[in-house]
Amino acid sequence: MTTSTSFLGLGAMGSALAATTLDAGRRVTVWNRNSDRTRDLGARGAIVADTAAKAIADSEVIVVCLFDHRSVHTVLDPVATDLSGRTVINLTTTTPEEARELAAWADAHGVTYLDGAIMAVPEMIGGPASAIFYSGTEDAYAAHRDLLDRWGTSTWFGADAGLASLYDLAMLTGMYTMFAGFLHGAAMVGTAGISATEFAARQAPFLAAMSEQLAGLAAVVDAEDYAGEGQQSLQFTDTALSALRRASTDQGVADDVLAPVHDLVRRQIAAGFGTHGTARMFEGLRSAR
Amino acid sequence: MTTSTSFLGLGAMGSALAATTLDAGRRVTVWNRNSDRTRDLGARGAIVADTAAKAIADSEVIVVCLFDHRSVHTVLDPVATDLSGRTVINLTTTTPEEARELAAWADAHGVTYLDGAIMAVPEMIGGPASAIFYSGTEDAYAAHRDLLDRWGTSTWFGADAGLASLYDLAMLTGMYTMFAGFLHGAAMVGTAGISATEFAARQAPFLAAMSEQLAGLAAVVDAEDYAGEGQQSLQFTDTALSALRRASTDQGVADDVLAPVHDLVRRQIAAGFGTHGTARMFEGLRSAR
Repeated sequence: MTTSTSFLGLGAMGSALAATTLDAGRRVTVWNRNSDRTRDLGARGAIVADTAAKAIADSEVIVVCLFDHRSVHTVLDPVATDLSGRTVINLTTTTPEEARELAAWADAHGVTYLDGAIMAVPEMIGGPASAIFYSGTEDAYAAHRDLLDRWGTSTWFGADAGLASLYDLAMLTGMYTMFAGFLHGAAMVGTAGISATEFAARQAPFLAAMSEQLAGLAAVVDAEDYAGEGQQSLQFTDTALSALRRASTDQGVADDVLAPVHDLVRRQIAAGFGTHGTARMFEGLRSAR
Repeated sequence: MTTSTSFLGLGAMGSALAATTLDAGRRVTVWNRNSDRTRDLGARGAIVADTAAKAIADSEVIVVCLFDHRSVHTVLDPVATDLSGRTVINLTTTTPEEARELAAWADAHGVTYLDGAIMAVPEMIGGPASAIFYSGTEDAYAAHRDLLDRWGTSTWFGADAGLASLYDLAMLTGMYTMFAGFLHGAAMVGTAGISATEFAARQAPFLAAMSEQLAGLAAVVDAEDYAGEGQQSLQFTDTALSALRRASTDQGVADDVLAPVHDLVRRQIAAGFGTHGTARMFEGLRSAR
């Protein structure tokens, strides 16, 4: 290993990526706008750069993990010429359109661009449950697989730099809605003096079991087989969601999170599909196109 | 077994309960408003009653699994005197308040009332993943455990008949929001030509893994430790949800399901808690009291 791998941005995720790379016995250079964040990694053997340009000078591969798309430009625009001829692996959370914009910016500056989207929390990096999606320059993905695979299971989605982000954000929608639904449920049982911890102990395995239903919903969506046998009807779901919302407001818990889910169901019923399967909600989401 | 167990209501769930009871070698009597539904169970050895009163006459234990709270009254009110001295196990989806109302109604008519809430889809009944919550008359729960345990793992929550339903509906909130989030994600990747089935194959194990985060969120909620270390901040979640919504609308996918989740996050930030953990959304839900 003759050159270093440089990391720009040492939030919880950037720090986890850099630490895992260090643990693999590689040379690592780190930079962060607030230099306090470099201390722990410096103590573990990372080279600490006091400017982004110095960090870039150390390495062929620059791993970027910043706050958002705007902060990527704030950090990279002034050092665009330094980056020329190098590879940027951008793991900052961006939208597909933002990833595509960064890929075009990189191309205009002679920079090889690989976009990554991390399907893990920082503590999971380097462990068996960590997964990272990539899209953009396929050669860069192939050339750096050894590095990428240190962080988690790597998956390639295609040359369109926006694909990893699109897939990532689609996956996170399920996570955030699940978290919000859990907190709503915890607020409901909390009104009867049941702790969130006791509730989580039942909710987590239940949701893990229910995640096995997603393949069935997906098969219906792909086949547009909403009238097929054995599905929970929209009418049944309407009744269940009505009960849920009534139970929430009866207990003084806001039903904000449920209202749009219920609206999706009721719009399909109003369109005449009450006896169809609940997966038909999908049509209400995609019909915004 | 000298008497039968009677089932009123043979939707998918009622049929599964009756079939599992038959499979256990018990005598079973069934009634359904639309008698077509009784055919399969009759062919498997169930006694088919042509009125609810006749079904009730056959058994000490009447299992009720109807469409909603109103349909329970529609079916039971005319046969209240027939029910006197017997036990009703009501597995219809109701709100906690509705379960309490039915318990009071039963008490007024000399009927022993046990309320149950099923944490399973019909295909799971009788299998290892089926769980059913109970509350109401504890003696009835104890006396009929052998029957109840045929359907799934039984759990007792207390004498307040509303508790099983409260817990059930709280659990279902997480499930419905997870399903809606999944369909939203499927609509997003669908715009890039990725099938819902391919997406589900990644989303299901990811959500199962993420369900392990719920215990951590719960610990924060119970301790009100929103300022503690190691939490994903509301500011970070705001950025992620902004990216998610922008990515959705960029692709022409409606962001209905995400909007209230994002609003809960932003209301906590507006109240000055941007650096606090994302579990603080809980406070926005319960503050409706």
